[in-house]
Amino acid sequence: MTVVARRLPENPLLTPDDIPPVHGGWKVVCAFNAGAIKIGAETLLLLRVAERPERPAPQAGDQEIDLSGAGPTLKPVDTALPADNYIAVPMLDDSPDRRVVVRYIRRNTPGLDASDPRLLKKGTHTYLTSISSFRLARSTDGVHFDVEHDAAMRPTEPLERYGIEDPRITAIDGVYFINYTAVSEHGICTALASTRDFVSYEKHGVILPAENRDVTIFPAKVGGRYRTLHRPVPKEIGVPAVWFASSDNLVDWGEHRFCFGSRPGTWDSQRIGGGAVPFRTARGWLEIYHGVNPDGQYALGAVLLGLDEPWKVLARSPAPILKPEADFETEGFFGNVVFTCGCILEGDRLRVYYGAADMVTAAADFSLEEILASLHEEG
Amino acid sequence: MTVVARRLPENPLLTPDDIPPVHGGWKVVCAFNAGAIKIGAETLLLLRVAERPERPAPQAGDQEIDLSGAGPTLKPVDTALPADNYIAVPMLDDSPDRRVVVRYIRRNTPGLDASDPRLLKKGTHTYLTSISSFRLARSTDGVHFDVEHDAAMRPTEPLERYGIEDPRITAIDGVYFINYTAVSEHGICTALASTRDFVSYEKHGVILPAENRDVTIFPAKVGGRYRTLHRPVPKEIGVPAVWFASSDNLVDWGEHRFCFGSRPGTWDSQRIGGGAVPFRTARGWLEIYHGVNPDGQYALGAVLLGLDEPWKVLARSPAPILKPEADFETEGFFGNVVFTCGCILEGDRLRVYYGAADMVTAAADFSLEEILASLHEEG
Repeated sequence: MTVVARRLPENPLLTPDDIPPVHGGWKVVCAFNAGAIKIGAETLLLLRVAERPERPAPQAGDQEIDLSGAGPTLKPVDTALPADNYIAVPMLDDSPDRRVVVRYIRRNTPGLDASDPRLLKKGTHTYLTSISSFRLARSTDGVHFDVEHDAAMRPTEPLERYGIEDPRITAIDGVYFINYTAVSEHGICTALASTRDFVSYEKHGVILPAENRDVTIFPAKVGGRYRTLHRPVPKEIGVPAVWFASSDNLVDWGEHRFCFGSRPGTWDSQRIGGGAVPFRTARGWLEIYHGVNPDGQYALGAVLLGLDEPWKVLARSPAPILKPEADFETEGFFGNVVFTCGCILEGDRLRVYYGAADMVTAAADFSLEEILASLHEEG
Repeated sequence: MTVVARRLPENPLLTPDDIPPVHGGWKVVCAFNAGAIKIGAETLLLLRVAERPERPAPQAGDQEIDLSGAGPTLKPVDTALPADNYIAVPMLDDSPDRRVVVRYIRRNTPGLDASDPRLLKKGTHTYLTSISSFRLARSTDGVHFDVEHDAAMRPTEPLERYGIEDPRITAIDGVYFINYTAVSEHGICTALASTRDFVSYEKHGVILPAENRDVTIFPAKVGGRYRTLHRPVPKEIGVPAVWFASSDNLVDWGEHRFCFGSRPGTWDSQRIGGGAVPFRTARGWLEIYHGVNPDGQYALGAVLLGLDEPWKVLARSPAPILKPEADFETEGFFGNVVFTCGCILEGDRLRVYYGAADMVTAAADFSLEEILASLHEEG
C-alpha cells in the first residue's frame, strides 16, 4: 500500500530569513527540527535556531583557542593576522552568568580538519561553527507562524556549552516536558526541561549521558512507568540503534532494552533514530522515525510498538513515508535530509512537522490509516 | 610524597589454573577484575572468569555465522573443511533457556580482522573469542581463597549475549548490589543485580545504556540520593571520561554530570575510568581509578571527591599508586595492565584487589594516610 505525503503548499513554513538573531551582529543559519504541540486551537513549534557570528574577524580582547599543544589553551588573538586566518567558534564561557562568547581557532593549525562547515576537529577536540537555542513559534492554523523575538530556551549549563538542539515536546498531565540534545566538548547527550505555559522553562538536567540523542518520551505511563525511546551511539561494539527505557519521574531512567535497529538492504540500513513523540493508536504506539540509506539520504518511516509492551516492535515501514524530493529538502545547509521532532494527529490527519536540509521547517500531511495499512509485520 | 604499594607475597592470589571451567571441555583463560567485600570475618571476591572452547573444531550440527553478505546469517558448518579454517565464538543463543553455544566464523572471511586474539571484527560486526561469567571465592584471611565450582552469575539476557564482566559490589543496608558490564552485539553497557546471601542473585536490568562501563556505586546515599560514577564512551564528540549520576532506587539514573577526565601529560592522559567502589574518609570520598598512559600502560591512582558534593573533584594522584611492574602484571592475556574493581579498608590499611595482565587476580596493601597525603589539589 502506498502512503501519500501531502506536503503543504506553503512549504517551507519557516526559514532562517524569518528569524531575527538573538545575538547582535550574528546570522541565523538554520531554523529547523521543531518540537510540535497543539494546545486548544493554537499550534506551537519550538524551533531549533542555529546562529553564527556574521563577521568572524577577531578584535583586540578576543580569545584564541590554541590547539598546537597537548591540550587546548586560551590566549589573546593576534589582531595583526589577516581576519580569514581565524575561524570563529561560539560557545558558553565559564563566567558565572554563562555568556555565549566567540572564540577563534587558527585555520592553519597543524592537523585541523575544517572540511565539514558545521564543525572543526583536531584529534579528539571538536568545536561547532554555530550555536543553537530554541525559539517559540505560534500559529492558529498550523501553517502560518509568528516567531517570538527572544529565545525560549538558551544553552546555560556546562554540558550545553556548544548549544541545545532538536527539542521534542511531550504533554503529560498538563505539563509540557521538553527533551533536547545538549552538546559540549564532553559529548552529545540528552537533557530535560519542562514548562506549563511556554513562558517560563525549568531545566531538569541531563537524563541520558553521552552519546545519546533522538529521545522521544511517551505521552502517558504504560504499565505504571514513564517510557521513552532513545538512541545511544556505541563505539567499541555495535551501531547506533533505538533503545527503550523506563522511569518513575522522567528524570531518572533505567530498564534499558534494545528496541530496534537498522535493516540491511532497506531505506534505513545505515543509521536510525527516533523522530516525533510517539502516540497511541488502536493497534499500538506509532513512532515516526528517521533512517538513512547508503546514499546518505535521511528519510522518515513509521514503527508500530506494542500497546502494553511498547518495547516490542509489531510492524515497520518497508519504504519511507517521506523522503527528500522538494528543492528545499534536497539542497540547504546539509542537503538530502528530512528529519522530524514532532507531529500532530487530528482525526485521521497526521501532520508531520520536519526539518528539511538541516535548514528550514516544513510540514506534510498523512492519513494515519494509510500509514498503518502500509506497515509490514516484524518478528 | 611517595605511596608505597605492598604487593602480597602470595601474588598472584588466583590464576586460571585455580578455576575449573563451568562448560565441559572448555578452558578458563582469565580469572580477574573481581568485586570485593568483607562480611564479618570473611572476604568475598566475585571473580570475572573468562572461558574459551578448548577444541574449536566444529562438528556436524554446529552453526556457522556467515559474514560474507550484507548481514550475519546462520548456516551449518562445513565439516569437510580443515578445523583451523574456523574460529570459535561463544555466545548465548535465542532459545528460551538461553544456552551458551559455540558458533564458528571462517578465518578466511573477506574483511575479517582477527588481529586481536580477544575478538573478531568485520565491518560493524564484532564477536568475542571467550565468554565471561562470575565465580565466587571465599577467604578467611583475605589472601587464600576457595573458589566455588559453579558460576555465581551467568549471562542470561539478550544484552548479555557475549558475557558479563567486571563486577563491583556495593553494600547498602544489608543488600549487596552488584553492577557489571553486559556485552552483546548491541554494545557494552552496565547492568545491576543484587544478593543478600551470595547464594541467590536477582538481576535488575541495564542501568546505563551503551557505551558505558566502569560504574562504581557509592555505598550510601549522599544528600538523599544514591550516587554513582560511570564512564560513558562518546563517539562523535568527546573522549571517555568519568561522569556522575544520581538515583532514588539504584535502577533508574539521572542528573548526569561530567566529573573528571584524562589529563594531558600525566599517567592518565589516554584513557580513564572508575575502579573500586568509593569509600568515605574524613576528607572526602576516595575512589581508586584506572588511567592509561601513551604506552598503553593501565595503572591505578586515587581521586578525592567532595563529602557533600561528590561530583566535585578535590584532589588527584599526580603519579600512579600502582603500575605494572611484576611479571604477572607486565605479561599475560593482555599485558601491562593493573585494573581494580574492589578494595577493602581496615583501619589505615587499604587492600586493593586487582586484575593483572587481564588474566590473574592479585592484591596490594596501601596506607590510606599515605594515599591522602600524596594527592594534589585540583581546581
